[in-house]
Amino acid sequence: MASAGSTMSWIEVTYHLRGAAADAEARARAIAVEQSIEMPPDAVDDPFVLGEILGRVVAVEPRSDGLQAIRIRLSAATVGGDAGQLLNMLFGNSSLHDDLTLAEIAVPPELRAALRGGSQIGLDGLRERVGAKARALTCSALKPQGLPAKELARLAEAFALGSIDYVKDDHGLATQAYSPFPQRVSACAAAMRRAVARTGHATRYVPSLSGSLDAVREQLHIICEEGLDTAMVAPAILGLANVQQIRRDYPDVAFLAHPSLAGAARIDPACLTTLWRLAGVDAVIFPNHGGRFGYSAQTCERIAQAALAPEPGLAAIAPVPAGGMSVARVPEMLDFYGRDVMLLIGGNLLAEGDRLSEATAAFVATVHRHSQAQAPAETHA
Amino acid sequence: MASAGSTMSWIEVTYHLRGAAADAEARARAIAVEQSIEMPPDAVDDPFVLGEILGRVVAVEPRSDGLQAIRIRLSAATVGGDAGQLLNMLFGNSSLHDDLTLAEIAVPPELRAALRGGSQIGLDGLRERVGAKARALTCSALKPQGLPAKELARLAEAFALGSIDYVKDDHGLATQAYSPFPQRVSACAAAMRRAVARTGHATRYVPSLSGSLDAVREQLHIICEEGLDTAMVAPAILGLANVQQIRRDYPDVAFLAHPSLAGAARIDPACLTTLWRLAGVDAVIFPNHGGRFGYSAQTCERIAQAALAPEPGLAAIAPVPAGGMSVARVPEMLDFYGRDVMLLIGGNLLAEGDRLSEATAAFVATVHRHSQAQAPAETHA
Repeated sequence: MASAGSTMSWIEVTYHLRGAAADAEARARAIAVEQSIEMPPDAVDDPFVLGEILGRVVAVEPRSDGLQAIRIRLSAATVGGDAGQLLNMLFGNSSLHDDLTLAEIAVPPELRAALRGGSQIGLDGLRERVGAKARALTCSALKPQGLPAKELARLAEAFALGSIDYVKDDHGLATQAYSPFPQRVSACAAAMRRAVARTGHATRYVPSLSGSLDAVREQLHIICEEGLDTAMVAPAILGLANVQQIRRDYPDVAFLAHPSLAGAARIDPACLTTLWRLAGVDAVIFPNHGGRFGYSAQTCERIAQAALAPEPGLAAIAPVPAGGMSVARVPEMLDFYGRDVMLLIGGNLLAEGDRLSEATAAFVATVHRHSQAQAPAETHA
Repeated sequence: MASAGSTMSWIEVTYHLRGAAADAEARARAIAVEQSIEMPPDAVDDPFVLGEILGRVVAVEPRSDGLQAIRIRLSAATVGGDAGQLLNMLFGNSSLHDDLTLAEIAVPPELRAALRGGSQIGLDGLRERVGAKARALTCSALKPQGLPAKELARLAEAFALGSIDYVKDDHGLATQAYSPFPQRVSACAAAMRRAVARTGHATRYVPSLSGSLDAVREQLHIICEEGLDTAMVAPAILGLANVQQIRRDYPDVAFLAHPSLAGAARIDPACLTTLWRLAGVDAVIFPNHGGRFGYSAQTCERIAQAALAPEPGLAAIAPVPAGGMSVARVPEMLDFYGRDVMLLIGGNLLAEGDRLSEATAAFVATVHRHSQAQAPAETHA
């Protein structure tokens, strides 16, 4: 039996607690127990459990915003290389306390290696596939749901004729009777091939995955058969262990992560970005500040940093700010995020109706111009 | 093209909004759009999309607690029978608004049928398997994690010698190096068989499932090979579509749902119970009031009602209040929940150390006595 900390590594986790500083120490001890052995330590006599598994309080410190920052070490051995189990250990039962937020994690190298699903494509790969050098990437979305496959394909073609980089399904597109996945993907992929033959720009169509892991595998099979190499997944709906699994099974598919249902969690979005990056996604979509959602500029900055920060063995992934963005905001967004970003504008382009290709081309031109004018040093993260 | 509402059915969803009543109408309209077509309705001219897919505001009403109740109809056709997609449509993007809670849903019969994974075992089945008539069921938990398989098996045997009904893995038990799933389940199943041969009571061991759907399937294979027929799953970690899938694939396995990570969602726990019941689980574990978590008695009452309320085609499922319960609280809990309940007491029994079997037997006797003394009319829900 090794002495504490000598043989096994620890995950350092920061929680933010609302409430009185006086209670914070006791709460910290309770969280360390809850997120590890989940029973009174007094009732445990096994030295391995007490030395290597029981969580430990590192520090409890008041923050300037009035919250208490609680830092705890959790044993990495409890995770077993499973990203779902990582979530379970980080915030499983403690998520039931509504005064507590999972704020930050630092994962030891061995666990990062154990979680790794193999090669990642990341921001560089996403650029390379569309022939972009260091510039920002462009993306739009097929919607509304309810349209038949051929109508969505018409929109996909129009976007591609504007030489956009990525065209994703709206996250509401699943496999509904009015637009089953196989028909939709086949129609949109064909439309994309036609457009790419005309423009010479390698626009990628990004179908949205849904259903169980089995269903997602069938969808990925169709995607590969259609010659596509990008897909969108909602990790909070599919389950993070399943994201890890498709990352392993499909090393050549780039995965864009959609935040659906993830905002429901009291997990800081930057922390969630870190977790999803660990599970192997290549880009993370999130609400930009000043759009339809209430994320602050500071939160968006932290998300971009979590996506891009150098991490040994992990590719930098693309931050994809979205949620009610407009072409008018492109210069400001690029000033904010720099060039290491994928800009996603959906409804604002679709509202152009018959002028969709022209509006898309104008969006693309604005991004190219502004992004290429930026020196690398101007990039944000 | 049918007129609105004539051919397709609608899900009625209630959200609770924090904030000013003056803004509530506009927010309601925005939610109806966000959770359906996710683009400005003005930019849509397709009559099917506008008539059958676009969400509709039913009512906006202030509540006595100061929140605004927003009732919206969402098209059931957008769900396609996938429980994950149901979550996506109910609360995907709106979960990103931190002033909004998903409070209640009413699902039309066709969608309930489409979601159904086949036979459910439910509360009645859980009783039948352990030879219980109308009484409350008893359950405990194997912990702490970090113990080797043989030590967990020793605890399992001690619980079973006390003639408890169900012994579940702690939700932290996954497949760690110090206690891999196959060894643990094999050791605990064998221990259980030994004990059952002595007591004659058909105590069930309930292993905890973890990892991807693939991993979970391997675990279920082991469970069935060991002659077990009960398992625990954390729907918020595995993903609800995957729960639906294992429900379909393993009609004879009873599934206990664990709330890990689910409290992180701003989804009312009673609403979550409804969703999990729709996906086919047979029991739902949740924090009882007055324990380690802050759920109110009223919330617990609503959870039990969501588990037990008659629903055509769906079995009533067992409410399993837990989270720091003690044997001393059994009479009060049974007075509160009635007999349609499974009482789960873990740490309080494990703290008895060498007296575990005796303490378990006392717990079991208290439940039998109190529960059998209750007239059916006293049951709560």
